[in-house]
Amino acid sequence: MTQLYDRVALIGLGLIASSMAHAMRRGGLAGEIVGTARSAETREIAREIGLCDRVVDTAAEAVADADLVVLAIPVGAMEDMAREIGPHLKPGATVTDVGSVKRAVVDAVAPHVPEGVHFIPGHPLAGTEHSGPRSGFAELFENRFTILVPDGNTAMEPIERLTALWQGMGALVETMDVEHHDLVLAVTSHTPHLIAYTMVGVADDLRRVTDSEVIKYSAAGFRDFTRIAASDPTMWRDVFLNNKEATLEILGRFTEELFALQRAIRTGDGEQLFDYFTRTRAIRRGIVEAGQDTDVPNFGRPVKKP
Amino acid sequence: MTQLYDRVALIGLGLIASSMAHAMRRGGLAGEIVGTARSAETREIAREIGLCDRVVDTAAEAVADADLVVLAIPVGAMEDMAREIGPHLKPGATVTDVGSVKRAVVDAVAPHVPEGVHFIPGHPLAGTEHSGPRSGFAELFENRFTILVPDGNTAMEPIERLTALWQGMGALVETMDVEHHDLVLAVTSHTPHLIAYTMVGVADDLRRVTDSEVIKYSAAGFRDFTRIAASDPTMWRDVFLNNKEATLEILGRFTEELFALQRAIRTGDGEQLFDYFTRTRAIRRGIVEAGQDTDVPNFGRPVKKP
Repeated sequence: MTQLYDRVALIGLGLIASSMAHAMRRGGLAGEIVGTARSAETREIAREIGLCDRVVDTAAEAVADADLVVLAIPVGAMEDMAREIGPHLKPGATVTDVGSVKRAVVDAVAPHVPEGVHFIPGHPLAGTEHSGPRSGFAELFENRFTILVPDGNTAMEPIERLTALWQGMGALVETMDVEHHDLVLAVTSHTPHLIAYTMVGVADDLRRVTDSEVIKYSAAGFRDFTRIAASDPTMWRDVFLNNKEATLEILGRFTEELFALQRAIRTGDGEQLFDYFTRTRAIRRGIVEAGQDTDVPNFGRPVKKP
Repeated sequence: MTQLYDRVALIGLGLIASSMAHAMRRGGLAGEIVGTARSAETREIAREIGLCDRVVDTAAEAVADADLVVLAIPVGAMEDMAREIGPHLKPGATVTDVGSVKRAVVDAVAPHVPEGVHFIPGHPLAGTEHSGPRSGFAELFENRFTILVPDGNTAMEPIERLTALWQGMGALVETMDVEHHDLVLAVTSHTPHLIAYTMVGVADDLRRVTDSEVIKYSAAGFRDFTRIAASDPTMWRDVFLNNKEATLEILGRFTEELFALQRAIRTGDGEQLFDYFTRTRAIRRGIVEAGQDTDVPNFGRPVKKP
């Protein structure tokens, strides 16, 4: 594959940035990969495992002379970081991010991006329940969507180049409007995560059912929730604080529907339950057919002895 | 392994019964396996794939001279079936079931079990999102719990023999009280399923986000919910109609907690969110350590091109 950027700076070295490092290397997409992280321990691990060509101690140092700067930090840290690196960005460079909400990131970052630097906010819809510099792997973005939300004044060439980078890492790239992104993600990601966190919290909190019972008998359905409820707490706190309106809207819809089903249970309306449960099967089929999940029973989980 | 029953009758030939047939054969646990199902199509498929030694057209025929009768039908169908087979049960035989709720099954079945036949209600905590006679596989029960809820008057020998059968199929066997079973399952299975069904229903129902967007971007979290929301609608209707009280109790707890988190989002209480999201990680670790789920990222889903 072709080298697309001479120097890429990764700000933050968690799951997404470390996966990007592996995927860019595999594809020969970047001349040099420079990384940095706020925590000295993270930088140390990154050096130890040779994650980047260079790991530097400050973001200002990392972005110097970089053609692409990737903000891969929690949404709540974006504004301070943008202020810090703004003066050090190279004219003509592209700045992007990988945050799970986009309106808040645009508001936080755009004011600090100088004239002549392209800001193209992005969001790879890929992840696992693991975090940190050791959790990355080159295949993370394979066949997953990355959404870019450039504003209408952004030049075509930097958008096309960034698109090529994500495609080179295996991703399918779409562009959409900032607000629509935040609504779509409230449905497909933010609300499901909040619900999973809540269900796991309830189970943990009951006095009449012990934690060890919850754990032993989790294969009956509960364990599917625990994976996403084990995601990085800082990241998710910031998501909910920064996509408040859309998440609250979808949550409102969710509780409305839940109350309707709850009422059907209370009144013994089997027909309503049956119809509802039949309808939801179709979406699963759609997801499997679109290659966004596997049809192997139980997600193809390996069976493991304890 | 030792043969434990000379003749086993499987009433209903869905995922659980067909997996039992495979697992009993693998272990040499039954002399003869006789099966039946209400639907002629199901019986035909079972004959075609050689699922049982014999497939018969009526339940009365199936249970004749059987040492173990397994009711593997929806909970709502248990009472009629018990009435039908009651007069044909062999003295000394054991009747068990695999229903997901136990109080309702005991109330429906026990009155029809004649003196001298042992009734030991059971529930294998294993399943996949697939159903029907073709969906079974011998490894389904491997390292999964099966809960037996015999009443205090049941003789030890039939309990021990049934325990040995489940162990021979790979399961871990526990016994508990009927009411406690229904509460534990409301937490680990019934409420999670209802929530998953609701979330998938909401996504399907929105006008401003299209189905195709929900499907494309499902890897951001939503798809984890769709697996259990694709489970058999008849089975789940019956579960909710028959474990009403415990499910409504846990649902009440769930909405209470959800409202607290919703309020934290609305008021911007990041600390509360962070603390909640940190606490829920521990349960996931417990489940993985207990061998009830895999630690491989994304459940070890195979990456597949569409």
